[in-house]
Amino acid sequence: MADVNSEQIAASILKGEIRAAAKLMREIDDGLPRALDTLKLLYAHVYKAQIWGITGSPGVGKSTLTDALVTKLRGEGKTVGVVAVDPTSPFSGGAILGDRVRMQRHATDEGVFIRSLATRGHFGGITASTRGVVTVMAAMGKDVVIIETVGVGQDEVDVVAAADTTLVVTVPGMGDDVQAIKAGILEVGDVFVVNKADRDGVEATASQLESMLAMDRDAPRRAGWMPPVVQTIASQSRGLDQLLEAIEGHRAVLTSDDGKLLAERRRERARMEVMDILKARTLRMLEERVEQNGRLQEMADAIADGRMDPYTASENIMAGIF
Amino acid sequence: MADVNSEQIAASILKGEIRAAAKLMREIDDGLPRALDTLKLLYAHVYKAQIWGITGSPGVGKSTLTDALVTKLRGEGKTVGVVAVDPTSPFSGGAILGDRVRMQRHATDEGVFIRSLATRGHFGGITASTRGVVTVMAAMGKDVVIIETVGVGQDEVDVVAAADTTLVVTVPGMGDDVQAIKAGILEVGDVFVVNKADRDGVEATASQLESMLAMDRDAPRRAGWMPPVVQTIASQSRGLDQLLEAIEGHRAVLTSDDGKLLAERRRERARMEVMDILKARTLRMLEERVEQNGRLQEMADAIADGRMDPYTASENIMAGIF
Repeated sequence: MADVNSEQIAASILKGEIRAAAKLMREIDDGLPRALDTLKLLYAHVYKAQIWGITGSPGVGKSTLTDALVTKLRGEGKTVGVVAVDPTSPFSGGAILGDRVRMQRHATDEGVFIRSLATRGHFGGITASTRGVVTVMAAMGKDVVIIETVGVGQDEVDVVAAADTTLVVTVPGMGDDVQAIKAGILEVGDVFVVNKADRDGVEATASQLESMLAMDRDAPRRAGWMPPVVQTIASQSRGLDQLLEAIEGHRAVLTSDDGKLLAERRRERARMEVMDILKARTLRMLEERVEQNGRLQEMADAIADGRMDPYTASENIMAGIF
Repeated sequence: MADVNSEQIAASILKGEIRAAAKLMREIDDGLPRALDTLKLLYAHVYKAQIWGITGSPGVGKSTLTDALVTKLRGEGKTVGVVAVDPTSPFSGGAILGDRVRMQRHATDEGVFIRSLATRGHFGGITASTRGVVTVMAAMGKDVVIIETVGVGQDEVDVVAAADTTLVVTVPGMGDDVQAIKAGILEVGDVFVVNKADRDGVEATASQLESMLAMDRDAPRRAGWMPPVVQTIASQSRGLDQLLEAIEGHRAVLTSDDGKLLAERRRERARMEVMDILKARTLRMLEERVEQNGRLQEMADAIADGRMDPYTASENIMAGIF
């Protein structure tokens, strides 16, 4: 049951108040139960925003591309939210190099809201937290919410795969990256970007991607959409018109036929979102019960001394807590 | 209680039989309960091997470095196990580029056992599986077991942080990588490697790392050990003597003072290993119960239609299953 306080916070966020939104996002980060009461009231507004995911290996220029897209969208009068889930993102703190501060030029623009989430320290809750922050930004009235995350790790991929449109970014000549795409994130991309397209080998990388996509064209998620491969030089804002056209093209497919595909993607996202929340809650419950149980350290000592093994130890603890 | 079959398999693995080991590793991958019975019997042997972790962003040359280390160790007459947890690793399948097959030259060497683990598709169990495979390799009698994993994501970092000695690899001039280290994996490195040291900017990267480490020198895990920064060109097998010296230097610190630090690290590893197994079991239990509960799809449909929110849905399901 939502209390009066939750209703007030929700109302402030729906009016676009930045301080209320920032406060709720901190509560989401801290896993406070009252954050959930407010999120319940805001959730109905999540479908007002377009949600884009941007993923790729470190060093391919995801942040620069996000920055360039934000500038472009602002130029069209659209408001934007950015959620960066990436240890290498300049928004996640710890920037030690001067050239990683580009996004800060948006800091004084009220039409842009940027929030970073650190991946470390979360106990199973990073995907649930990310989705919560997306909901808050959509409720604030942002036209587009961009989720930026590194394309490694199941959680990171799941979170962008649940966007309306997912961009997979690579650069020319990085065999490793094409392989990373091949190995894990090929199937989640709706639009592929070869960034730093002034480098050698851009055509080879683009055509390698195109042949891989051609082989994968009957994947269920595709539903007849052949993901385009767009070349950009994000640092010079080049190729952005083509990129936005590709995203719009994908949106047109999603919303055609009475929005059948968009509805399907939303059902899939809803399913994942419920599972994420269940996982986060279950792991928190596990952590609390292991703490209460109080036998973990004693077991760890016995294992390190060779008197026990971790499988027997976990069976003993499991029997005591569930 | 271990059955006769488990005892037979364990005995075969302790004799170094490759087929028995490979079979058990597949069972670990598939999450079969009988794999745990065998692992219980093998666990006491895990401390016979030195366990090294190698981590770093995609493209820094982790696999090439691992390959060069394997060759070097084999030259010294040592046997080696390699566990690769990395979507960009050549061992994880899907290699589309001819130059990613170096490690295959060890395929006919009985003193080397290589096993890759895909990170996708695992439901909370990748760290537990990895540790299980490490146990099998140690039980086979491998002198050194190397865990290679990409340095992004909590699970990936946890798994190498639990090694006896953890190597963090970067390359010159990749600002992003130094930042990734800063943001997440600085504190887990016992030895730092600047690979591809024939590239421009190697000295700048090395000294940047050294200053970051100097600031971090009082971290509890350090225990007086100042992690050295070693320059290598793995593709030409250069710098490996210095790297092995650095690893040996760290081992000397771990084993000095009656092995106090090594014992401490093992207790920490045991604690993490028990938690990993508990997490994997708990998430499997969650998945089964959600399946039995059977209301997830109906809830997802209601959410996508705007009739419900995922927080209320997860509360409803949670109440029904725990």
